[in-house]
Amino acid sequence: MREQFQKITVLGRHDDSRTAEPIAALVSHLEEKGISVVRAEPFTPGADVDRVRDDAPTDDVDLIIAVGGDGTMLSAARVASDSGTPLLGVNRGRLGFLADITPDEMLESVDHVLAGKFTHDSRLQLEAALESGDGEVRTAVGLNDVVLQRRETGRMADFETRVGEHYVNTHAGDGLIVATPTGSTAYALSCGGPIIEPGLDAIVLVPICPHTLTDRPIVVPADQPIEVRLLERHDTKAEVTVDGRSLGDILPTDRLIIRAAEQRIPLLHPPGYDFYGILRSKLFWGRDNRTRGA
Amino acid sequence: MREQFQKITVLGRHDDSRTAEPIAALVSHLEEKGISVVRAEPFTPGADVDRVRDDAPTDDVDLIIAVGGDGTMLSAARVASDSGTPLLGVNRGRLGFLADITPDEMLESVDHVLAGKFTHDSRLQLEAALESGDGEVRTAVGLNDVVLQRRETGRMADFETRVGEHYVNTHAGDGLIVATPTGSTAYALSCGGPIIEPGLDAIVLVPICPHTLTDRPIVVPADQPIEVRLLERHDTKAEVTVDGRSLGDILPTDRLIIRAAEQRIPLLHPPGYDFYGILRSKLFWGRDNRTRGA
Amino acid sequence: MREQFQKITVLGRHDDSRTAEPIAALVSHLEEKGISVVRAEPFTPGADVDRVRDDAPTDDVDLIIAVGGDGTMLSAARVASDSGTPLLGVNRGRLGFLADITPDEMLESVDHVLAGKFTHDSRLQLEAALESGDGEVRTAVGLNDVVLQRRETGRMADFETRVGEHYVNTHAGDGLIVATPTGSTAYALSCGGPIIEPGLDAIVLVPICPHTLTDRPIVVPADQPIEVRLLERHDTKAEVTVDGRSLGDILPTDRLIIRAAEQRIPLLHPPGYDFYGILRSKLFWGRDNRTRGA
Amino acid sequence: MREQFQKITVLGRHDDSRTAEPIAALVSHLEEKGISVVRAEPFTPGADVDRVRDDAPTDDVDLIIAVGGDGTMLSAARVASDSGTPLLGVNRGRLGFLADITPDEMLESVDHVLAGKFTHDSRLQLEAALESGDGEVRTAVGLNDVVLQRRETGRMADFETRVGEHYVNTHAGDGLIVATPTGSTAYALSCGGPIIEPGLDAIVLVPICPHTLTDRPIVVPADQPIEVRLLERHDTKAEVTVDGRSLGDILPTDRLIIRAAEQRIPLLHPPGYDFYGILRSKLFWGRDNRTRGA
Repeated sequence: MREQFQKITVLGRHDDSRTAEPIAALVSHLEEKGISVVRAEPFTPGADVDRVRDDAPTDDVDLIIAVGGDGTMLSAARVASDSGTPLLGVNRGRLGFLADITPDEMLESVDHVLAGKFTHDSRLQLEAALESGDGEVRTAVGLNDVVLQRRETGRMADFETRVGEHYVNTHAGDGLIVATPTGSTAYALSCGGPIIEPGLDAIVLVPICPHTLTDRPIVVPADQPIEVRLLERHDTKAEVTVDGRSLGDILPTDRLIIRAAEQRIPLLHPPGYDFYGILRSKLFWGRDNRTRGA
Repeated sequence: MREQFQKITVLGRHDDSRTAEPIAALVSHLEEKGISVVRAEPFTPGADVDRVRDDAPTDDVDLIIAVGGDGTMLSAARVASDSGTPLLGVNRGRLGFLADITPDEMLESVDHVLAGKFTHDSRLQLEAALESGDGEVRTAVGLNDVVLQRRETGRMADFETRVGEHYVNTHAGDGLIVATPTGSTAYALSCGGPIIEPGLDAIVLVPICPHTLTDRPIVVPADQPIEVRLLERHDTKAEVTVDGRSLGDILPTDRLIIRAAEQRIPLLHPPGYDFYGILRSKLFWGRDNRTRGA
Repeated sequence: MREQFQKITVLGRHDDSRTAEPIAALVSHLEEKGISVVRAEPFTPGADVDRVRDDAPTDDVDLIIAVGGDGTMLSAARVASDSGTPLLGVNRGRLGFLADITPDEMLESVDHVLAGKFTHDSRLQLEAALESGDGEVRTAVGLNDVVLQRRETGRMADFETRVGEHYVNTHAGDGLIVATPTGSTAYALSCGGPIIEPGLDAIVLVPICPHTLTDRPIVVPADQPIEVRLLERHDTKAEVTVDGRSLGDILPTDRLIIRAAEQRIPLLHPPGYDFYGILRSKLFWGRDNRTRGA
Repeated sequence: MREQFQKITVLGRHDDSRTAEPIAALVSHLEEKGISVVRAEPFTPGADVDRVRDDAPTDDVDLIIAVGGDGTMLSAARVASDSGTPLLGVNRGRLGFLADITPDEMLESVDHVLAGKFTHDSRLQLEAALESGDGEVRTAVGLNDVVLQRRETGRMADFETRVGEHYVNTHAGDGLIVATPTGSTAYALSCGGPIIEPGLDAIVLVPICPHTLTDRPIVVPADQPIEVRLLERHDTKAEVTVDGRSLGDILPTDRLIIRAAEQRIPLLHPPGYDFYGILRSKLFWGRDNRTRGA
């Protein structure tokens, strides 16, 4: 089924010695096979590291191969967020949750995928809309999470949450993570959230360092909008980020609406992909060895 | 739509002063309305408190009203687990997660339900099958959770888990909770599991006091079987319980298979039911008041 | 032993309706008894809410009575941090951890204290010194905690810790709380730290949302300096706060040294004070009522 | 200073292939140096694995070298609990918290210690006394922890705690761990307790899977007795274990009193010992590598 992928974007940092070499090798390899290759940088060189190149030429390609790590995969997902172009990830070092091809098996794994030998995940994305009181709306799409977080240290943020029609809670603390299953193993996990299998159509709300100790993570179906509002408190500022990139400050007059994006991201994996295998590797399962008797 | 519920079982403990009176009032009230009422005890009097009356006459009734608490609701669910008879719960005291009618509004709320004014939840049940090496199978159905737990204190249990086709992990610790969304607010919550909205078709695996600190709760789609096996360790014994009732000891030669039961339990609620409102009440949300500045 | 407290500072916000009245009543009450009273504001009116009045006349007083809440008590402790003047706290509403006299028993409790009927706690304070690469040192003293926290959302901070002579760990995450036993029930508790009895001579290091899931709170003896250094990472900024007030940004060339202050704060309590009673009240112990069987 | 250790007990399992060889090598090595060596088994062969040999001849020896793991070290500590004989631990495999000499450096490290080159820790032990209603008292001493835990699965235990003069809380859940700093990295850590530096004179109370989510670990000074009582509940049984060995069932008429033992255990370490280095190694600090951006 090689005809499936005639035009491929290779996305990665050329200025990083750990990725420049595998990118070059991959591009040569693909071009030798007669595939049309577009090279793209995850970031505009010299610009704010967080700003994606808007001109990344990806709309009419059949596949994006991201070379780097899970962060590069997040950039690639952003590029593909509207088109739903399939993604394949090559890690520059250790296995990633998203970039699950290691450099030494790169060419072989890519050949498998080109030959149609791959498994495939359809990953939920979140769409965040920050609606200001005067009607302005800023939006962004993320594969991992939307995070509301206080900006100035020393003071808690108060905010309230709604899921669908229902008022959920008025929280006080450092903020809130709204994560996809993909994002459940990222920042949300550090804040006490559960791991969610990528195939589950769910979203998790994870309070960050909540003042109320019973304010625990909640997993909800992905088909309901989630609304967050910051409460008036004279000395708090809070910011919204999507996959780690700022969407802007949130004010008490704003509404933050988060919902599952219509477009999902097809994530390709080489044969033998195993979500639980990656979990075991990333979380050192089976290797802790504290006191266990004689 | 009063014709919907012509025959009703009222389930509750007659020997408990806190429930005997509301039961009597409820039975009179229903009979005055011409409804055929069956009275049932959650337990065989004088017998092991954990053994449900097998003769509880519920198969041909249209509704079971359980008077007591969430524990009585679990007994009622057990009785209805095959038939899928709708359940309505009256709490003897404070609001419960399942028994969400309080005694003082009992008759009014029941009248609303009889008149067709109710909301309705279809709750996932788990079916546990403990298959011994010689082919014997013990089964039970639970609304909250299936728990594997070491029986003797002082030694960890080692066990491995599979979800669908996939090996997940080899765990060491006190055991594992496999819970429904309904059970996510019970024992699983005490062991670090997330809250799961009742409408989500998911199951959560929560390790109990895991030796490996990264062995965290995992939420998976409900359409896959979960398999747990105890590993050989000369000095460990472990038991399986379903909704707190013993299914028996598990041996290293056994397989414990847990899957979503085909039958769901219709849970009726009086108008105005709000899952999040109950959460807020049960978890004292919005009422903690630790140090918050001047 | 009324002669013990001849000159008393009453500290509290006159512009807050909840405190103005009890302050006035308290001042009258004290003056009627012939006690010399100094009135002080926790903050300079109109100024940054976080800046304490530098001219708060407290050095030669025998007792500071703070009226407000635990936040006002922190301000009072700051004022007394060098002199070690005893503190007594009146809460404007619910019982506080530090302000443990309620308004309705205020005059009676104060009379008890004036008559020498009180218990007394000697609370550990922390002294933070932020040493910049060019030798400049900023210092502050806090009763609760010293917090290093990333300032910009979206990126983790990397930092390393030393306790006494020993390198402890290189952390990645949102930051670190170094708390006294007094502070263990404040922000540190929200981040997973343990409760520490006020009488224990210990300091707890609590990582904030650590990337590494095994990066857990560590309790150490209070007689060792704790050192924290931010690691170079091009896109992280971090700030140090002491009891919620900024000490300034920390750079990779800086060293943050935290040690037990020589001066302790004598905290007076009315007769019947019980640390565990306050804990039970603040944490709603004994009042959770999730599913507990029939 | 070799004269310091003239008579040494070597404690370890001769029937375990992983320890038999290093034990033999060690005994030869010591005897060649003219040291009088006593060989002891941690357990009576063929007997209950939990029963320590009562005749382990250790009273008049100058040093106990335990070969095995942290479990063997706990056995050795039990043997030395009255006499306070110094302990040195050789691990059969990976570094332990207590057994901190690895097999390949065993002879060299032992020679260092014999030559007086060692550091030394004085570890707090707990003394548990289970006093029955009729005056009978069973006691045991432990280096790690005293654990009260429900014996039958499916039902919570209710129990109340006192520290010194003070009632602390009425708990519901799976039980309670009372741990030394040494035990803080064992079972208590799996139940959410903090790490405590071995040099701190403190005890931590860690509730096991508490029903009340705010029922958090409490660290208290070691100079107060801790009392635990089981509350009457018709269907609960609970057991007390000390370092994993049963002290017996606890009844509602019993009192469990736990206090710091007068005798401390001198733990010897080869030069270069670093508590934090062991922590880093055991908890895989610095090696987690979840998603961290590009």
